[in-house]
Amino acid sequence: MNAVSVFLENPVPVFAPTDAQFGRLRERLPGRDVRFCRSEADFLAALPETEIALVWTFRQEWFALAPRLRAVCTPAAGRDYFRVAPPPGVELRYGSFHGAIMGETAAAAVLGFARGLLPFASLMRVAGGAAAWPRDAFAPVARRVAGSTAVVLGFGHIGRAAGERLHALGVRIVGVSRGAHPAPDWFGPGDRLATAAELEAALPLADHLLCFLPSGPDTDRLLDAPRLALLKPSAFLANFGRGNLVDEDALAAALRAGRLGGALLDVFSEEPLPLSSPLRAAPRCWLLPHASAFAPDYLDLCFEEFARTVS
Amino acid sequence: MNAVSVFLENPVPVFAPTDAQFGRLRERLPGRDVRFCRSEADFLAALPETEIALVWTFRQEWFALAPRLRAVCTPAAGRDYFRVAPPPGVELRYGSFHGAIMGETAAAAVLGFARGLLPFASLMRVAGGAAAWPRDAFAPVARRVAGSTAVVLGFGHIGRAAGERLHALGVRIVGVSRGAHPAPDWFGPGDRLATAAELEAALPLADHLLCFLPSGPDTDRLLDAPRLALLKPSAFLANFGRGNLVDEDALAAALRAGRLGGALLDVFSEEPLPLSSPLRAAPRCWLLPHASAFAPDYLDLCFEEFARTVS
Repeated sequence: MNAVSVFLENPVPVFAPTDAQFGRLRERLPGRDVRFCRSEADFLAALPETEIALVWTFRQEWFALAPRLRAVCTPAAGRDYFRVAPPPGVELRYGSFHGAIMGETAAAAVLGFARGLLPFASLMRVAGGAAAWPRDAFAPVARRVAGSTAVVLGFGHIGRAAGERLHALGVRIVGVSRGAHPAPDWFGPGDRLATAAELEAALPLADHLLCFLPSGPDTDRLLDAPRLALLKPSAFLANFGRGNLVDEDALAAALRAGRLGGALLDVFSEEPLPLSSPLRAAPRCWLLPHASAFAPDYLDLCFEEFARTVS
Repeated sequence: MNAVSVFLENPVPVFAPTDAQFGRLRERLPGRDVRFCRSEADFLAALPETEIALVWTFRQEWFALAPRLRAVCTPAAGRDYFRVAPPPGVELRYGSFHGAIMGETAAAAVLGFARGLLPFASLMRVAGGAAAWPRDAFAPVARRVAGSTAVVLGFGHIGRAAGERLHALGVRIVGVSRGAHPAPDWFGPGDRLATAAELEAALPLADHLLCFLPSGPDTDRLLDAPRLALLKPSAFLANFGRGNLVDEDALAAALRAGRLGGALLDVFSEEPLPLSSPLRAAPRCWLLPHASAFAPDYLDLCFEEFARTVS
């Protein structure tokens, strides 16, 4: 009878459902046999009846325990998340709600850099000397985002959500993606799409380069030293996709040499980021612990989308 | 013959015009006798012919040297800026273009706090222990701004520009001002105006309290300990108006006691902020050196507005 099994225990609190979130999901799926599993044992016991699973992890051998299974869904956006090959008739579905959260993080990064908060807002706390009232250092850094250009590398649902928020602040958007997709309805005359083949032509336009690409062989070190060198010396690079994209040694060297304005990285080639990474000591380099999608309503957004696709 | 004299030398580079900016202003005022003064002596020599002056400072005794003067204009927004009493027939005019810059700084502050960049983006640089990969500390902090409420205290042209940018990001706006002004055309059903008498009722609603009030007897310590106590323990306070507004000892105590989520201050009761200020050591307190309007095109925006009012 259409059993939906949800097993989302996770060490990161915002990625594990509360009882209240489970309750809201149950209300969104009236008439469904919804099973909330708090342990792998619970989930395995539910699998024989399960038609649709919503999980963070799924093992290849579990397919044999789930003869009714039609879909394995996950909140994760990254296609690298599942390492399983589903049998015929079972589809994998990924979340596409993350833009509502990560779009804000991207806007925060661009505004925080351009308006001087990233370089200065923590500086005056550890003050002494010129850092005690750093007006002279601040003045050459701060600029408006209105009228600037953001190149958004990876223009799927997350990149588009970031672009839409920056567009609302007067930023011109160049959305770069592999496929041929229609322009979003919020595009104005200053915004445009570009193909992956046009990346080298787009990079010199960027006041801000925002990256949302998945991992894979075609994105490995895509931002290498020669492509980083195409950016303006004042440009700001932010990566919220996957850490394989950036040659981290080349990025740290560009920052040290003053060939790049600044960078904010949420993802890294190795996570947790090693203490020995040159990014930790690079100037104008800000770091987040793969947290750009953290929000208390992460799973509420996930459950809203899941309920729409299931009902 | 309608002489316009511009004297804007300033130790802050973005507040002093470049020759290129002067050139653009001259093009915007065709047919005007525009005099660009690089020194006080130049300006005093121009004063006898000057009808309209655009200046950072004006001395009371200079009025006697300027029989044709009709208006003294300044880029400054703060009414506390000029300490002169103009004779009959001479008006003082203040800039009202700052919202295009400060509105972005305010949005940067709200997003930077809500998305965890202010507390964390510099932390991983000085890493060690839990700070090396602070996912556990990050998760309870980061939230979305969409659906949150910003109370904007001082809803003139700057407060409205801040509100408009946050509204575009899905934030509900409560605009508090002394006078009765019409609602901005971007207001939606979730936004509303409030009077100064309703401040105590508005404070508990604020996820973000953004302050843009001028200095004066009626704003001195308006945000004292009892009013700060009306804010949610998770609320974020940002002050971009004048430093007389906030009881800084009470604010630092509220942050230390965990009764307030965080604060970002650009203005202070004493500037430069003394090294001994308790704000320097208060937790979740970020500081800027009275720089929220810094931008390379500050004077371009000023000149555009000035040219519109003069021509």
